[in-house]
Amino acid sequence: MAENWQPPARLAEFAELDHDRAARRGYPEAVYCEGKTPAQVAAIAAAVREHGTATLFTRATPDHAKAVLAELTDAHHDQDARLLAWPPEPPAVTGGLVVVAAAGTSDLAVAREAQLTARYLGRATELVVDIGVAGLHRVLGRLELLRSARVVVVAAGMDGALPSVVAGLIAAPVVALPTSIGYGAAFGGLAPLLAMLNACSPGVAVVNIDNGYGAGHLAAQIAAPA
Amino acid sequence: MAENWQPPARLAEFAELDHDRAARRGYPEAVYCEGKTPAQVAAIAAAVREHGTATLFTRATPDHAKAVLAELTDAHHDQDARLLAWPPEPPAVTGGLVVVAAAGTSDLAVAREAQLTARYLGRATELVVDIGVAGLHRVLGRLELLRSARVVVVAAGMDGALPSVVAGLIAAPVVALPTSIGYGAAFGGLAPLLAMLNACSPGVAVVNIDNGYGAGHLAAQIAAPA
Amino acid sequence: MAENWQPPARLAEFAELDHDRAARRGYPEAVYCEGKTPAQVAAIAAAVREHGTATLFTRATPDHAKAVLAELTDAHHDQDARLLAWPPEPPAVTGGLVVVAAAGTSDLAVAREAQLTARYLGRATELVVDIGVAGLHRVLGRLELLRSARVVVVAAGMDGALPSVVAGLIAAPVVALPTSIGYGAAFGGLAPLLAMLNACSPGVAVVNIDNGYGAGHLAAQIAAPA
Amino acid sequence: MAENWQPPARLAEFAELDHDRAARRGYPEAVYCEGKTPAQVAAIAAAVREHGTATLFTRATPDHAKAVLAELTDAHHDQDARLLAWPPEPPAVTGGLVVVAAAGTSDLAVAREAQLTARYLGRATELVVDIGVAGLHRVLGRLELLRSARVVVVAAGMDGALPSVVAGLIAAPVVALPTSIGYGAAFGGLAPLLAMLNACSPGVAVVNIDNGYGAGHLAAQIAAPA
Amino acid sequence: MAENWQPPARLAEFAELDHDRAARRGYPEAVYCEGKTPAQVAAIAAAVREHGTATLFTRATPDHAKAVLAELTDAHHDQDARLLAWPPEPPAVTGGLVVVAAAGTSDLAVAREAQLTARYLGRATELVVDIGVAGLHRVLGRLELLRSARVVVVAAGMDGALPSVVAGLIAAPVVALPTSIGYGAAFGGLAPLLAMLNACSPGVAVVNIDNGYGAGHLAAQIAAPA
Amino acid sequence: MAENWQPPARLAEFAELDHDRAARRGYPEAVYCEGKTPAQVAAIAAAVREHGTATLFTRATPDHAKAVLAELTDAHHDQDARLLAWPPEPPAVTGGLVVVAAAGTSDLAVAREAQLTARYLGRATELVVDIGVAGLHRVLGRLELLRSARVVVVAAGMDGALPSVVAGLIAAPVVALPTSIGYGAAFGGLAPLLAMLNACSPGVAVVNIDNGYGAGHLAAQIAAPA
Amino acid sequence: MAENWQPPARLAEFAELDHDRAARRGYPEAVYCEGKTPAQVAAIAAAVREHGTATLFTRATPDHAKAVLAELTDAHHDQDARLLAWPPEPPAVTGGLVVVAAAGTSDLAVAREAQLTARYLGRATELVVDIGVAGLHRVLGRLELLRSARVVVVAAGMDGALPSVVAGLIAAPVVALPTSIGYGAAFGGLAPLLAMLNACSPGVAVVNIDNGYGAGHLAAQIAAPA
Amino acid sequence: MAENWQPPARLAEFAELDHDRAARRGYPEAVYCEGKTPAQVAAIAAAVREHGTATLFTRATPDHAKAVLAELTDAHHDQDARLLAWPPEPPAVTGGLVVVAAAGTSDLAVAREAQLTARYLGRATELVVDIGVAGLHRVLGRLELLRSARVVVVAAGMDGALPSVVAGLIAAPVVALPTSIGYGAAFGGLAPLLAMLNACSPGVAVVNIDNGYGAGHLAAQIAAPA
Repeated sequence: MAENWQPPARLAEFAELDHDRAARRGYPEAVYCEGKTPAQVAAIAAAVREHGTATLFTRATPDHAKAVLAELTDAHHDQDARLLAWPPEPPAVTGGLVVVAAAGTSDLAVAREAQLTARYLGRATELVVDIGVAGLHRVLGRLELLRSARVVVVAAGMDGALPSVVAGLIAAPVVALPTSIGYGAAFGGLAPLLAMLNACSPGVAVVNIDNGYGAGHLAAQIAAPA
Repeated sequence: MAENWQPPARLAEFAELDHDRAARRGYPEAVYCEGKTPAQVAAIAAAVREHGTATLFTRATPDHAKAVLAELTDAHHDQDARLLAWPPEPPAVTGGLVVVAAAGTSDLAVAREAQLTARYLGRATELVVDIGVAGLHRVLGRLELLRSARVVVVAAGMDGALPSVVAGLIAAPVVALPTSIGYGAAFGGLAPLLAMLNACSPGVAVVNIDNGYGAGHLAAQIAAPA
Repeated sequence: MAENWQPPARLAEFAELDHDRAARRGYPEAVYCEGKTPAQVAAIAAAVREHGTATLFTRATPDHAKAVLAELTDAHHDQDARLLAWPPEPPAVTGGLVVVAAAGTSDLAVAREAQLTARYLGRATELVVDIGVAGLHRVLGRLELLRSARVVVVAAGMDGALPSVVAGLIAAPVVALPTSIGYGAAFGGLAPLLAMLNACSPGVAVVNIDNGYGAGHLAAQIAAPA
Repeated sequence: MAENWQPPARLAEFAELDHDRAARRGYPEAVYCEGKTPAQVAAIAAAVREHGTATLFTRATPDHAKAVLAELTDAHHDQDARLLAWPPEPPAVTGGLVVVAAAGTSDLAVAREAQLTARYLGRATELVVDIGVAGLHRVLGRLELLRSARVVVVAAGMDGALPSVVAGLIAAPVVALPTSIGYGAAFGGLAPLLAMLNACSPGVAVVNIDNGYGAGHLAAQIAAPA
Repeated sequence: MAENWQPPARLAEFAELDHDRAARRGYPEAVYCEGKTPAQVAAIAAAVREHGTATLFTRATPDHAKAVLAELTDAHHDQDARLLAWPPEPPAVTGGLVVVAAAGTSDLAVAREAQLTARYLGRATELVVDIGVAGLHRVLGRLELLRSARVVVVAAGMDGALPSVVAGLIAAPVVALPTSIGYGAAFGGLAPLLAMLNACSPGVAVVNIDNGYGAGHLAAQIAAPA
Repeated sequence: MAENWQPPARLAEFAELDHDRAARRGYPEAVYCEGKTPAQVAAIAAAVREHGTATLFTRATPDHAKAVLAELTDAHHDQDARLLAWPPEPPAVTGGLVVVAAAGTSDLAVAREAQLTARYLGRATELVVDIGVAGLHRVLGRLELLRSARVVVVAAGMDGALPSVVAGLIAAPVVALPTSIGYGAAFGGLAPLLAMLNACSPGVAVVNIDNGYGAGHLAAQIAAPA
Repeated sequence: MAENWQPPARLAEFAELDHDRAARRGYPEAVYCEGKTPAQVAAIAAAVREHGTATLFTRATPDHAKAVLAELTDAHHDQDARLLAWPPEPPAVTGGLVVVAAAGTSDLAVAREAQLTARYLGRATELVVDIGVAGLHRVLGRLELLRSARVVVVAAGMDGALPSVVAGLIAAPVVALPTSIGYGAAFGGLAPLLAMLNACSPGVAVVNIDNGYGAGHLAAQIAAPA
Repeated sequence: MAENWQPPARLAEFAELDHDRAARRGYPEAVYCEGKTPAQVAAIAAAVREHGTATLFTRATPDHAKAVLAELTDAHHDQDARLLAWPPEPPAVTGGLVVVAAAGTSDLAVAREAQLTARYLGRATELVVDIGVAGLHRVLGRLELLRSARVVVVAAGMDGALPSVVAGLIAAPVVALPTSIGYGAAFGGLAPLLAMLNACSPGVAVVNIDNGYGAGHLAAQIAAPA
């Protein structure tokens, strides 16, 4: 066999990093770890350090995290959110407030991923937990905070009803983040995804199931300074 | 060809009516008109008249209705609900109250089918319309009525969020009736159906999409006298 | 990174318990363990003990159970049903009888979850097993018991035919509980779920696949004293 | 444009009839009319007459039927079953009895298509209607007939539960014929199809939704003389 | 039958209009015409005129439109977008620019619905057509306009690839609007919907298939003055 | 907690064995092991030994097998087919020949389950392997054997094309057994299942995905002596 | 309302034609008529005439065709294929032979669309009809022609088995063209689509359901001169 | 039990190798390892060595690879691509260039499987990585290479947009290879699969999800010498 089929010895053979993306879009680079080997992630982390590019590593398993931290020793690591950020200090706050609401405790990990992403893209953030529609008084009890946001991210699994309720109560847009929490006819998040796409309140922006990074990124863009 | 393949000349050849069902289950017979020809429905109506069995004709098109009314001239006909009832007078009220709530105007036809069915099975009924989750104040404004019911039927399309919200506010069971109102990713009622099956409040009993008859029947059974 | 992203040190940060729910709806609180860490469940159990709220822990793995029992040492634990109840003694019996029927041995765990839930919500319960439609004589042999119930929960996987058959034989409503038992075109419970939603007998209330807790809760509400 | 793209002037250009198929498989040829123009069907009918091949025309609209009858004036036409047979006299009876059972009146058309097909392939047939599982006494009342069959075709829509029940009561195989009768979560026959594929009784042979021809053909083969 | 089942004589019986919604959320009321009869829509239009509430009528068939225009004679009617607006003059422009891009001519109707909605909610809007990914030079040729927007709505059917491409080129968020344009494995818009939910560029907010109103509403909220 | 929720101490509490089923249907009892604990299976095996009922244990894991063999030490165990049979000697051969054909090596396990089941129900059987449609000469090379069968079971995954091809070549019915072999758009056997349901040759009887037991049982019934 | 929302008076507002596409890709422009109004198509046809660009109009209804022919009076129109070509003369033949095979008569229209497209892109073409796998002798009877092709397009509905069989017999690639012919579990072409994606013979290139244009275009590219 | 059910002692019982396939189709034999035991694969490898047939082993786990290498000690093994080739030297290069493009690093394994397959079927190949549509400049930067190919294989997960973009830029056909990279609404590769089937650029040939072998084989056939 010719050598051009051997595993790539250098980074360039398996990932052409986009180091000017920050400039082009104004936000840090993101590396999606799932489906990459720890060795591949380590090579990317080394390139990140060399170029000094602000970077988020998402969906990082403990092995991915170890690989990143070996190269970027001061990176911030949030285990619940499976996210690493380098440099560890988020940028100064600009733009409007991003509120992230989680319908239940089980939605917390993905909600935190959204919150951290928005923060590392430069927004002020607040996290509200366990305000599902089964107990409306909890939602109504946080109305002032929800109404103070430039955008609200709502993470919910099961019936995915919370974004409809929240969007009906506030004037700002809602980023609806379906989670795979649930079982049976939840079909891995399909049920809340469909519910959110059919939200009876307008102003609901849907992202992929469990896509905390995407929700946070979108929220940061919506709340960006004009 | 032998004669045993000819279209049936008499009713018995295509429908063996269950005239003792009322006795066995305590409720009127129901004839599902969809998929039957007007002539078949007329033959059944004639048999109903002959036996004097209380009967509901559901999903009746105008042609079905005409066929029924030709045989049972005093039958009650509700065009919105596509339902005919004979005899026209519903039975005396027994058991608890059945409240039927429709999330939107478009859910009204199927909600009315549920209401009429429950009434013809012997329950007192109330209908509440247009109390979707996009305007929570409407739901909260009807709380007293909702809490007075022995069971609440909630008809909703789109995100199917209303049963979750109602079930979280009352102690009685909720019959969730998904409707095919909506478009796109509503997939003919699949979205509210899945949402209702995954309701985050317990106490939600789901029936088939647009199945107003089934919802009303179930509600009547739940609210039956002990 | 600022501290507001650290894992929550106190319960309040990830779960706002609803201690007045028992009062509002008349039933114990339920904690859905799936998707929560044992540490989160332990913190909730400690809060439960502190407030003295009657609570069910559902879908508890052995690790979840250990965490609960460390805080609530006298909690009742049913391993088959993956359920813990505290306080261990169920309330006094009120209302009508809840019969739970399982089509096959494999449906037993989820049927027991339904039975236990109904009992801890205050109903008398009976469990009937292995009465699938492939052997109708078994169903007919239990007809007297089935007809004595205020509501019957029917757990079935595969073709999900049993609720239709049972609902055709009794006057009380049937709670249809599809299970994920089966393979291939059962699609994780989709086949019995669809069959139950299309039951040819009226009076069938469907809950989510494997949702024994929901079925038991709904049955307890239906059989509640008027 | 070259002429080889013009609409075919002769039959051979759009359908190569398989006139020795009867010899090869022992059964008449079948022409599936759906998706063919009346003119195409007429050309085929003319070829059938010329070759004298015994042929069934299935899924024939009135226009298809008119086209066939113009060429094969003595063909038998069953409008309910949308089927034409030529020559009109079915062959002498051989092999075992084929019983066709329809769960409801709405399943009758497709059941008759199955019955006629089996008869034209040489079997004795009996048709039983309206024996759904919601009224078990009807099924049990026909047990003797069902047990006298070499094979039973069971046509059912909605929950598709009848084949399971019948297969549990007899020793002969059951051909399960799902119909598109139903609405909402029946999804055009998907619900009974899945239920039948997951029948809890062994001995159930499933065919496509509304495939009366296929069910009758299969039944005729199963009941063929050894 | 008692009179409380008759078709409602007055509006209040089938639609509780939310006349203070404009105040609560800051935007005009919307009436979704699909599933409503022209008579129901006419009654709503009369109530709108009486209260003087700014209102959009969406998904209006010609019959719906006629009913609205009989009551609100000066309403603006866009037939392509199936939308009517009253009062006809849109509000003064505030906030940022909303650019609406349609991948193909066939996506134009739904794109225009989005554009009109955003305009009637107070934003300046621009419409760009026929810039599908099959001809990248067209997309790149509009880059300056796309980059001048506060938010870009991208309507696309078939492969739904355009939002990914646009989001990768600009810093502002993209509202992805899948259309049901296509056939076969497009499955009524499912293909572009899934593609957009999985957009490889972050910053993509998905709405329901053909939901031009929702896309325009969301865009108007995102581009609202801070 | 009361004792009636404890795990069942005796078999009768979780499985009511159907010991007269052999008499009623003429075939051995079958115990589906999946979803049962080894202890439950052992208890059933003990009851089988006590009653002397001929029994098949299907879908047995090694742990299930060990449990059975501890009670029925002379049971026949086929590891590939995951099946145990007791008594180990199959009954004398009656009826016609059952040929089982496997499209590929990967379909072998489920094909063998079908073959063994048919043999233990009293039929002579032959197994043919690796005759996929990608190499038609292999199919044609076995034509004589295929045509000698009273029924042919065809196990195939991936495109599920083999049953169509075989059914077009023989006069006997074909039992089509889809397998979950494949990946991606095979969707766990959905692709061959749908293909088989749409077989363009009549005479194809479809069973559930990977349901070797069901295929063998059905084939044995079809090939039973008249 | 401002005028920029009026229906476009000039072509440029709703379709930016890609007149240099022929140069860029070497093939004629194609206009997909579905979803366009006859007036829009007419405007495009006028532009085509003005620029003299070779163009195919696909999925043209009779009204679309009339609109095209009013502007391009000498265009070639194939009604079965719903296709118009201008200029009417196809280009000189280059490259290899494209054979188009249709499994059944019902697949003929889409097969012809593929054939015409390939011819207008410059290839020699042959059409073979009615060679489904139910009659293998027909396939084998055309083997010489099939093996003479540079690429074979195989159109098939129902079980979609033909591409697998053909690909196993020839060395050239096969373009598999699933059609929506069939009913029930064919699910509008999903069954043959999945079967073709899982073809057990390598060398199968799948296009969208009923996408005759795409199949012909792809085949023309494959058979292009090197 | 008779011995004809024992595990096959000789290869012939479970796999009839097709040693003249290379001659018939001109390409090496392929053995799909998934679903086969290492022992079965070893037996096949031994037969391969004995006959000297050029063979690819695809989807080989480490255990499969060890089994192959024990028999064919000089086989080439690419762990990333899970592929083994024997003899290890690929054939001399003929025909046109095959370029394989991977949208992201995570698509690399399946892209390499495609590349290796094409090379072992005799084509020259080039691999391009990480050129997703989120960074169009990367795609445009490789345009010269892409345009030099006789066929381009494009592997992409998530939104599957890259094949549309590439096909719009080149004249050669594109083999679209959807990968299961992604999560949530990617549904195991369904999203990119559907997107590719609906590619808005013609000239896109789709293969099964993750089917690198099939993509490479098809590409090799397309680029074969005329």
